Amino acid sequence: MLETDFKYILDTFFTLFTMTLIIFMVPGFAMLEAGLVRTKNVSAVLTTNVMIYAVASLAFLLVGYKLAFGNWDSVSSSIWAVFMFQMAFVGKTVNIMSGGVSERVRIIPLAIFTVVMGAVIYPLVVNISWGADVIAGTIFDIDIYDLAGSTVIHSTGGWALLAALFIVGPRKGRYIDGKIRVIPASNIPLVVLGALLLWIGWFGFNGGSIGSISSVENANSVAKTIMNTNTAGLAGAIIVGIIMYIKYKLFDITMILNGALGGLVAITAAPNLYDMYTPILIGFVGGALVVFAVAVFDKFKLDDPVGALSVHLVNGIWGTLAVGIFVDNVSFISQLKGVIVVGIFTFSLSFAVIYIINRLFKFRANDEAQLIGMDINECGVESYPEFKRAI
Amino acid sequence: MLETDFKYILDTFFTLFTMTLIIFMVPGFAMLEAGLVRTKNVSAVLTTNVMIYAVASLAFLLVGYKLAFGNWDSVSSSIWAVFMFQMAFVGKTVNIMSGGVSERVRIIPLAIFTVVMGAVIYPLVVNISWGADVIAGTIFDIDIYDLAGSTVIHSTGGWALLAALFIVGPRKGRYIDGKIRVIPASNIPLVVLGALLLWIGWFGFNGGSIGSISSVENANSVAKTIMNTNTAGLAGAIIVGIIMYIKYKLFDITMILNGALGGLVAITAAPNLYDMYTPILIGFVGGALVVFAVAVFDKFKLDDPVGALSVHLVNGIWGTLAVGIFVDNVSFISQLKGVIVVGIFTFSLSFAVIYIINRLFKFRANDEAQLIGMDINECGVESYPEFKRAI
Amino acid sequence: MLETDFKYILDTFFTLFTMTLIIFMVPGFAMLEAGLVRTKNVSAVLTTNVMIYAVASLAFLLVGYKLAFGNWDSVSSSIWAVFMFQMAFVGKTVNIMSGGVSERVRIIPLAIFTVVMGAVIYPLVVNISWGADVIAGTIFDIDIYDLAGSTVIHSTGGWALLAALFIVGPRKGRYIDGKIRVIPASNIPLVVLGALLLWIGWFGFNGGSIGSISSVENANSVAKTIMNTNTAGLAGAIIVGIIMYIKYKLFDITMILNGALGGLVAITAAPNLYDMYTPILIGFVGGALVVFAVAVFDKFKLDDPVGALSVHLVNGIWGTLAVGIFVDNVSFISQLKGVIVVGIFTFSLSFAVIYIINRLFKFRANDEAQLIGMDINECGVESYPEFKRAI
Repeated sequence: MLETDFKYILDTFFTLFTMTLIIFMVPGFAMLEAGLVRTKNVSAVLTTNVMIYAVASLAFLLVGYKLAFGNWDSVSSSIWAVFMFQMAFVGKTVNIMSGGVSERVRIIPLAIFTVVMGAVIYPLVVNISWGADVIAGTIFDIDIYDLAGSTVIHSTGGWALLAALFIVGPRKGRYIDGKIRVIPASNIPLVVLGALLLWIGWFGFNGGSIGSISSVENANSVAKTIMNTNTAGLAGAIIVGIIMYIKYKLFDITMILNGALGGLVAITAAPNLYDMYTPILIGFVGGALVVFAVAVFDKFKLDDPVGALSVHLVNGIWGTLAVGIFVDNVSFISQLKGVIVVGIFTFSLSFAVIYIINRLFKFRANDEAQLIGMDINECGVESYPEFKRAI
Repeated sequence: MLETDFKYILDTFFTLFTMTLIIFMVPGFAMLEAGLVRTKNVSAVLTTNVMIYAVASLAFLLVGYKLAFGNWDSVSSSIWAVFMFQMAFVGKTVNIMSGGVSERVRIIPLAIFTVVMGAVIYPLVVNISWGADVIAGTIFDIDIYDLAGSTVIHSTGGWALLAALFIVGPRKGRYIDGKIRVIPASNIPLVVLGALLLWIGWFGFNGGSIGSISSVENANSVAKTIMNTNTAGLAGAIIVGIIMYIKYKLFDITMILNGALGGLVAITAAPNLYDMYTPILIGFVGGALVVFAVAVFDKFKLDDPVGALSVHLVNGIWGTLAVGIFVDNVSFISQLKGVIVVGIFTFSLSFAVIYIINRLFKFRANDEAQLIGMDINECGVESYPEFKRAI
Repeated sequence: MLETDFKYILDTFFTLFTMTLIIFMVPGFAMLEAGLVRTKNVSAVLTTNVMIYAVASLAFLLVGYKLAFGNWDSVSSSIWAVFMFQMAFVGKTVNIMSGGVSERVRIIPLAIFTVVMGAVIYPLVVNISWGADVIAGTIFDIDIYDLAGSTVIHSTGGWALLAALFIVGPRKGRYIDGKIRVIPASNIPLVVLGALLLWIGWFGFNGGSIGSISSVENANSVAKTIMNTNTAGLAGAIIVGIIMYIKYKLFDITMILNGALGGLVAITAAPNLYDMYTPILIGFVGGALVVFAVAVFDKFKLDDPVGALSVHLVNGIWGTLAVGIFVDNVSFISQLKGVIVVGIFTFSLSFAVIYIINRLFKFRANDEAQLIGMDINECGVESYPEFKRAI
């Protein structure tokens, strides 16, 4: 057998394996968000998650992929595997955005936004950031190192969410008389299940972004990437656990999991470039940032029921900058410039698109609909019809 | 290393990978059905799912495998991996049947039927349909193209379900005075989790059915298969979402997911033979058929709490016929003949077996047992004992 | 390409694949235990599970790995993959222990124990049992065959649990006036989901323990291992189902699943060495032992809410001894000696460590905290705040 054939076969298999792990993030996000929102909004949140996967993926197949990568060719592994791998990414940006505006947005405008994101915005961000290579000069002259998308995926989703929050506003009843009303998560097992599925999906997300396993060097790089990814998640969870215990003598599991996810987001820019100890530091900072940011965003009345801004936007930025701090050959200034350029580009474009859609279809459900719950209003399906409500 | 050794190793690994994905369908079916039935029947449904996996698999190991494939040999990959892959299929036919008669059947007669299905009926269907090759002349003279079992798995399960429905009848209280009483799903997050696990399992189901990844051609075929499988699922979900919105201005998530599953069933006959756009059409038709068929079956008082007839039987037929419509070298008449022959064979045999078992052990629980719920009557275990019932 | 490179690449990929399956055991254990305990303790149990994964893994990275294996080298596959695979094991021993003392232990002392287990106790057990090879003479002169850890993982966790139970005592209200109060599982779907994720994880646990797939012989061995592992699980479930039906005419799904897990634990010592029928026998005995042991431990007031002693300790012992009974070249006496030496070593060390930690931090929550529930006391987070309690 030719060595090129061997590599082609093995990398196709590897790409399909890592793609499959990423697809576990679809139930991951769905369960996480279904657990975090109130029972009256669970079916709507779940429907939104399924819709995003279906609509974003099909938009990417029909339009987005070509816009992002220029053509349907691949020489080093099967194009169909490469497509599936890239397609597995595209919904994530919308997931991040939709999670943060849940419990008050309607599905139809979200679906339209999903089409635009999957067909245009995300592909453009990929094109200008990753272009032909991970490090690529572009029309925006960005020279950013971002292996699996701390900026390209997570911050992009986060900026879109920030834009949406300005337009959609907080949930009815969240901020009253200058006070923040605590709205507890309705189903903790689902939160944990979802976060852990995301964690496992991250192995595919980051490991697969190496793009090949068919040389000794690449095999090492893939394995190192997965190990470092995991380590940052561990560290993010642990630091938040410690902070929670010091502050409250209580272990808030939803916050701990967001700490883990924050660490995972932060390491995503360059899990392959660090030694085995640096991810601990990156995760520690990432987790601590989540705790800090959640409070800050609430102060600004940016009502984000799942903590997506703190996890994805803040840590997407931190993770991208961290590469410039800890890796010798990567310029901090370049990373910072990349963060800013992608931020301005994505925020502006998302704001404009969401603004227009909002004028036409009204993202926000009215107060009565929010009171009754999005399940009845959007789906006609109660999430747990047989359980008596305590509140 | 010899090229044959390389292929043997890689295909064994690949088979184990895809088999594992299929095993995720065990929790997939279990969660889907547990979410769709009422809380008083959840433990019984879950017990049934675990029983089916255990009993069907062991029956297939002890008897069925030899009946289906003639011997325990394999030259191109490890026989143990091949067995596990085939074993992962066998329970599915019973899952399809048991889901559709849930909330009123007893576990003991189901277990006996599972033995017969795993040891005899399913192996015979495999033998006459797939024989030595995917396309094979047999004693029934079928010449059907059915890569991963639109007919062999899904319709087979569906025909068995139809036979069971004639014998078992509808749930007590479902049809009263000519009206259909709506019985809502009890746990929507479980429905979504289950459907998404099934979706992921389908990658292994269909991708693994290519049988090998160890050549460039096969690697492409596997990747194409997985991509097209996914696309049909996306399309099935989207079309049902659109239909739901047009008809009701509401997104019924359980129906949307059944649309996705319908698309997945329909593509299963030949995901490897289509271009990248045809699966969209196949999924659209598949999803629409689910919406249509659910209403029709209810009109005939075929009470199927999980929609298995619409998803598996109708789309198994549609998917098999679609190969004859869209693929040049496959004869529509042959496909149709295959559908009819397997249908008659499976329905008759299943009917006879279920009839006999029913005479000896009575499938249907009595009215009082149905009222109290199958959990108490069959398992002695309540599914959610601490939650107060609203209804 | 050099054959050694081919093997290095493939085994790295294979190790990453099996490692990922094992990581599914993290949500597996979490969901299983969350389903088995009362709703007032669910968040605490979930927090404990996440804590164990995070803390044990980081302790193993920083200290334990070197203690267990001597150095950070690997010649036959990427060291980072090998580390991740080994790391995936370490939390399991603590999971087994923590599950058995749930509903009354506090998280802080458990976290300290987790550090000691991950950094010292488990690595030492690995070192003396597996040493340089699966069969290895050591300072304790053990010569035990234990492929994937019936003794090294499962009994080790079980002995630690037994030690903990002596120190921590039963849940408040479990044994009153010589009677056992039945405390039902609160969420059966989670129990089933968790058990099935553990089952799938076991394929990676045992299959990956072959250590390589890159020769025809190893590929066969991996596939055989996975098949036999699965068969023992099937048999464990079936035998408990039969026993339940004979004794009660009822199918207790939690007991059936513990039967399956018992079979899986028992086969773990040598799934690669048996023919395809012996695992049925091993699983039958394993499942039956679970039913028997659960009653015995309760008689001794060893209050184990998840049945971990019966599943992991009893079947860890049975599985290790079974190798000496059914495999020609393995000495029963050696296996027995291994079981005893590891048992005495682990029990003593665990007892001493737990005793000291208990003196400093008090493992057991006071009666009032147990009454209110660990969720409020340890996490400040209710697991299902919107559902009205029936009991």
